[in-house]
Amino acid sequence: MVLLEGLKIANQIKEEIAETVTKMKEAGQKVPHLAAVLVGEDGASLTYVGSKVRSCQKIGFESTLIKLPQEVTEEVLLKHIDELNRHPEIDGFIVQLPLPKHIDEHKIIMAIDPAKDVDGFHPVNVGKMCLDLETFLPATPYGVMELLERYQISVSGKHAVVIGRSHIVGRPMSVLLSRKGIWADATVTLAHSRTKNLKELLLQADVVVSALGVPHFVKGDMIKEGAVVVDVGIHRIPDARLPKGYYITGDVDFEEVSKKASYITPVPGGVGAMTIAMLLKNTLIARERAMTKA
Amino acid sequence: MVLLEGLKIANQIKEEIAETVTKMKEAGQKVPHLAAVLVGEDGASLTYVGSKVRSCQKIGFESTLIKLPQEVTEEVLLKHIDELNRHPEIDGFIVQLPLPKHIDEHKIIMAIDPAKDVDGFHPVNVGKMCLDLETFLPATPYGVMELLERYQISVSGKHAVVIGRSHIVGRPMSVLLSRKGIWADATVTLAHSRTKNLKELLLQADVVVSALGVPHFVKGDMIKEGAVVVDVGIHRIPDARLPKGYYITGDVDFEEVSKKASYITPVPGGVGAMTIAMLLKNTLIARERAMTKA
Repeated sequence: MVLLEGLKIANQIKEEIAETVTKMKEAGQKVPHLAAVLVGEDGASLTYVGSKVRSCQKIGFESTLIKLPQEVTEEVLLKHIDELNRHPEIDGFIVQLPLPKHIDEHKIIMAIDPAKDVDGFHPVNVGKMCLDLETFLPATPYGVMELLERYQISVSGKHAVVIGRSHIVGRPMSVLLSRKGIWADATVTLAHSRTKNLKELLLQADVVVSALGVPHFVKGDMIKEGAVVVDVGIHRIPDARLPKGYYITGDVDFEEVSKKASYITPVPGGVGAMTIAMLLKNTLIARERAMTKA
Repeated sequence: MVLLEGLKIANQIKEEIAETVTKMKEAGQKVPHLAAVLVGEDGASLTYVGSKVRSCQKIGFESTLIKLPQEVTEEVLLKHIDELNRHPEIDGFIVQLPLPKHIDEHKIIMAIDPAKDVDGFHPVNVGKMCLDLETFLPATPYGVMELLERYQISVSGKHAVVIGRSHIVGRPMSVLLSRKGIWADATVTLAHSRTKNLKELLLQADVVVSALGVPHFVKGDMIKEGAVVVDVGIHRIPDARLPKGYYITGDVDFEEVSKKASYITPVPGGVGAMTIAMLLKNTLIARERAMTKA
């Protein structure tokens, strides 16, 4: 069993980006600038955004954090987005989800300039992904593809089962795995809450990507010997005996499944780390595209 | 075995649309207006566009056919598209594909106003489909979904295998079947040219949609007893003994497969007829949306 060390690969990618940034600076070019909009005080969102901003600083990106109160109106949020769209210094930005219920998430995403939508959530970017056109790939599925490629795991012609059909992970994951390309070309089954014969299906899979959101759902007896198992789940499980009061785990029962898998991602240290790396990569791409256009 | 009579259902849908158009006229409202742009003299394209225009006339739509010579420049074609985008009378339009090689198909599709893109090919419309937002669904997969619904065939939780990953049929078909909804919710496997174990996969399928483009590819021994079989293929097979010099057939070996299937589409008279009906439906929707906005 080989561990798919997302954290290690993510650090490699960050180093590669940092080198590019250094060269940009040396050439007197503007460096990439990522902005993040955070609404409210949700603990997980604060952690994610904080981590994104710190990563920017480490690799030499400029970064801007816009913190807005929980009760901010849709109108005010849209004004901020409009400013970010126009701001010549900002190459890409994200609006951390989820948003408070009084704000129409879809309206917000639609307002983001697709050329700065480094999360790849705008419909035009989702559509371009489906049509194999140049776009920003959503960071988590992009991270999984990159992880497989860096470990030289060919999925071509293999049967991949993706569990979960969310807009930001499962659905794009199924598209990316089944697109044409030497690191894609898989036969993909998209399974979800209505799937009746999941265990039977998983036992046939050469590659399993779990983005279901249920801790330890995928057990050893559901996986074929030698399968590649990618765990997108991240769950905080309360445990009073631990110093932090919780531990982090995924959708996959690692102890059981790691005995059968040929490759497996740990949680933490797997896909999660890749997500931030690919967001930074997208921001670099946004800067490079802006430079080409200018 | 029940025949999924696309032609019959398509005629029903057209009658329903015609009734709506009659009511629109009676209310003194503008009726839907579909324009089609045809470049060159390709036989199949002429047939398709001709059929679309005649269908418009039958159901009371206005229609406009813009015929351009094979050697038209991209610039001139883009000007026509710009005019159609601005034209207040035209609710929706299509550019018949394929286009001559000197024209960038993608550039043309990108130039179409998504609000008039009744083929549903613009990336923003493709993305909206993936994100379950209101859009124009591409006519062929939309037609398949409508056909299944009108025959009250529930695919929820069933295993559907789609053969072929084209941008206009296979890929959107896989998305529509696996979206949430009472007439969707299938577990979908998207198979294609790189799929290794296709026969094995098909033998597990409760629903098979073939959009592969190879005549008589799907044989009786590849289908599970009782499966629902939808044939998107349309092929002209030359046969000098026939009055027309050819016959029309699909991807499926109808004689063999119809003995095992619970439901099956014939070719011709199956999915093909539905495609035009759904294009008309999209044009009606475009008119209704324009009316709501006005």
